[in-house]
Amino acid sequence: MKSLVTGGAGFIGSHVARYCRDMGHEVVVLDDLSGGFKDQVPEDVEFVEGCITNQKLVESLFLKHRFDYVYHLAAYAAEGLSHFIRRFNYTNNLIGSVNLINAAVKYEVKCFVFTSSIAVYGAGQVPMIESMVPRPEDPYGISKFAVEMDLAAAHEMFGLNYIIFRPHNVYGENQNIGDKYRNVIGIFMNQIMRKEPMTIFGDGMQTRAFSHIDDLAPQIARSVKVRKAYNEIINIGADKPYSVNELAYVVSSAFGVSPRIKYLTPRNEVQHAYSNHDKAKKIFGRGSGVSLEKGVGRMAQWALKVGARRSAPFKNIEVKMNLPASWQV
Amino acid sequence: MKSLVTGGAGFIGSHVARYCRDMGHEVVVLDDLSGGFKDQVPEDVEFVEGCITNQKLVESLFLKHRFDYVYHLAAYAAEGLSHFIRRFNYTNNLIGSVNLINAAVKYEVKCFVFTSSIAVYGAGQVPMIESMVPRPEDPYGISKFAVEMDLAAAHEMFGLNYIIFRPHNVYGENQNIGDKYRNVIGIFMNQIMRKEPMTIFGDGMQTRAFSHIDDLAPQIARSVKVRKAYNEIINIGADKPYSVNELAYVVSSAFGVSPRIKYLTPRNEVQHAYSNHDKAKKIFGRGSGVSLEKGVGRMAQWALKVGARRSAPFKNIEVKMNLPASWQV
Ligand SMILES: NC(=O)c1ccc[n+]([C@@H]2O[C@H](COP(=O)([O-])OP(=O)(O)OC[C@H]3O[C@@H](n4cnc5c(N)ncnc54)[C@H](O)[C@@H]3O)[C@@H](O)[C@H]2O)c1
Ligand SMILES: NC(=O)c1ccc[n+]([C@@H]2O[C@H](COP(=O)([O-])OP(=O)(O)OC[C@H]3O[C@@H](n4cnc5c(N)ncnc54)[C@H](O)[C@@H]3O)[C@@H](O)[C@H]2O)c1
Repeated sequence: MKSLVTGGAGFIGSHVARYCRDMGHEVVVLDDLSGGFKDQVPEDVEFVEGCITNQKLVESLFLKHRFDYVYHLAAYAAEGLSHFIRRFNYTNNLIGSVNLINAAVKYEVKCFVFTSSIAVYGAGQVPMIESMVPRPEDPYGISKFAVEMDLAAAHEMFGLNYIIFRPHNVYGENQNIGDKYRNVIGIFMNQIMRKEPMTIFGDGMQTRAFSHIDDLAPQIARSVKVRKAYNEIINIGADKPYSVNELAYVVSSAFGVSPRIKYLTPRNEVQHAYSNHDKAKKIFGRGSGVSLEKGVGRMAQWALKVGARRSAPFKNIEVKMNLPASWQV
Repeated sequence: MKSLVTGGAGFIGSHVARYCRDMGHEVVVLDDLSGGFKDQVPEDVEFVEGCITNQKLVESLFLKHRFDYVYHLAAYAAEGLSHFIRRFNYTNNLIGSVNLINAAVKYEVKCFVFTSSIAVYGAGQVPMIESMVPRPEDPYGISKFAVEMDLAAAHEMFGLNYIIFRPHNVYGENQNIGDKYRNVIGIFMNQIMRKEPMTIFGDGMQTRAFSHIDDLAPQIARSVKVRKAYNEIINIGADKPYSVNELAYVVSSAFGVSPRIKYLTPRNEVQHAYSNHDKAKKIFGRGSGVSLEKGVGRMAQWALKVGARRSAPFKNIEVKMNLPASWQV
C-alpha cells in the first residue's frame, strides 16, 4: 500500500504518517514546511518539500507513486486569522485540496482521507453532531466545508471514496507551540517557558474539548481499512469541555508554576465548542481516552525538551481592518 | 455614484451596466472577455479588459475609482462542465470573488451585489425557496455557495453590505449563443441557424423556468437603492417551468422552422428546477413578466441580426473521465 500524507511534517500529519508507516504503508510526505518541521517527518518515510498548490508537482507525484490512499492534512489552519487572509486561505486550503482531488480521481485513489474541522459547524450548535447543517462563519471554516462538498461531488461523479474527519482542538507532541495565531495549549506553554503571562482573548470562559493526538492519529491512519467509514463525515476527539481558564491552570501545573494570565479584548470566536462522538465510537470503537492532565503533562515534557521554536509572523495580511492588536506585525 | 460591474461585457452584466448607467451611475466594467464581447459593453461606460483573479489590477481599480457599489457578475458559469475543471472553477469563481470582497472591505464599498445561482440548492429541492438549506452538487454551485457564505462572514466581521441574487436560466439579447456548454436557448438558436438538429441531453423532460433578461437586469441594477434588499439572498426570475422539449418547439417556431431534435445520453444534472419568487416580489414588486414566446421571439430577432459567434471550446479540461462525448475537444 502506498500512501501520500500531505502536511506530514506538521503536527497531526507527522503522527498519521508514522502510524501509516507502522501499518506497513509506503509513505510519501508532501509538505511545504510553512508550518511544519522537516525533523518531524518520521523515519523511513519519503519527504517531498513542496506546496499542494503546485499542480504540476502534485500530478507528478501521483504519476510516479500511484498512491492507494491520500491523507490530506496540509492546511493553513489559523481560523481567527482567516478573515484577514481570505485569498491565501482559499488558495491554500481549497485550491490546494482541489489539485489533490483532481489527481486522486485521475489516478483512481482508493480512498481520500481529509481532515476538515469543527469550524464547519459555526456558532451556537452545541454539541456538534454530524447530522447538523453546517454554518461556517469564517473563511477557514468555509474552505473546509467547500472541500467536504467537493469531495461529495467527486464521489457522485467519479466514484472517488472519501473519509472526512472533523477534529477539534487537538494538542500534543510535535505541535507548533511557536504559532501565535492558534493552538492555545501551545501558546500557553510557549509563554510559560518564556516567562511571559498566558494571554487569553476575552474572559477565558469560552470552552473547548481538547483532544490529545493519541486519541485521533491512530484512527485517522487506520480508517482506510474500515469500510463503514467510507464516504462518511466523522467528528473525532475528546468529549469533555474545559474553559480556557481551567486549561491555563492545568498547563501551569504541568510546568510546576502558578498561573499568570493576561486577559485581552475578546475576538470574534465561537464561545462553546464541543462535539458528539457517538458516530466515531460506533465506527472505530473507543479511543484511548488520554485525560487532559496526562496529555498536557506529556506534551509539557516534550516541549521542555525541544524548546519553543519561534515561527515567523504571517507576513501577507490582506485586510488590516479590525485585526486584533496582538496579531499586528 | 460610481459602480464597478464585473462581467459587464457578458450577457447579464452588459444589461446591468446599461441600467446602472441609465440610473446615473458612473460605471466601470471589468471583464477579461473570456466569455463576453467588447462591443456589448454599453456606451459611456469605461471598459477595463482584465481578470478578477489579478489581485493587483483589482486593487488598483478600487484605489483609483473608490466605487460606491460593486456588481459582481463575472464568472465562468458552465455548471455541467465544472466537474471537469474544478481548479479553474474555484480559481475564477471563488478566488476572483475574494479579491473583490477584500477590496470592497478595504475601500468601504456601500453595497456588494453578487449573482449567485440556483445551483446552490442542488437536486430535489423544488420549488426552491431562500429559506432552504443549500446542497450544491457540483463545483460551480459549491463555488457560488462559498462566495455567499464568505460575504456573510465579511458582513459580520467588517460590516460589508451585500445583496445576493440567485437567478436561473436567464436568456435574451447579448447572450453568448456560441457557447456549447450552457444556455440551452442559445444553443438551440445557434443550431437552428446552422441548420443542425437541436441536441438535448436525456429525454428532454427536464424542466426549467426560463427568465428573460428584462425581468432581472433592472432589479439587479436598482437593488442598491432598496434598503430591504440589503444583506438578503433573493431568488430572481420567471415562475413558470417548461420542459426542454417544449422549449425546443418555442424556439423553432420563433425561427419559423419545424423542430428537429437529436437526443444525447443524459448527463448528471438536476431534473426539475424552478424557484419561488415571493421574496423578490415583496422586495421589488412584480417584474415585467416577459412570456417565453415573446422573449424568445425578441432574442431570435437579435440572434438573426448578429449571427452566431462561435466561441472556442474550453481548452484546459482537467479531468477527462466521464466527460460527455459532445464536450470532448
Ligand atoms: N490541530 C487542530 O486542532 C485541528 C483541528 C481541526 C482540524 N485540523 C486540521 O488538521 C490538519 C493538520 O493540522 P495541524 O494541527 O497538524 O497543523 P500543522 O500546521 O501542524 O500542520 C499542517 C502542515 O501542513 C503544511 N502545509 C500547509 N500548507 C501547505 C501547502 N500549501 N502545501 C504543503 N504543505 C502545507 C504545514 O507546513 C504543516 O506542516 C489541518 O488540515 C487542519 O486544518 C486541525
Ligand atoms: N445566465 C444564467 O442563466 C445565470 C444563472 C444563474 C447565475 N448566473 C450568473 O450571472 C453572472 C453572469 O452570467 P452570464 O449568463 O451573463 O454569463 P456570461 O458568460 O455572458 O458573462 C460572464 C462575463 O464574465 C466575464 N468573466 C468571466 N471570468 C472572468 C474573470 N476571471 N475576470 C473578468 N471577467 C470574467 C466573461 O468574459 C463574461 O463577459 C454569472 O456570475 C453567472 O454565474 C447566470
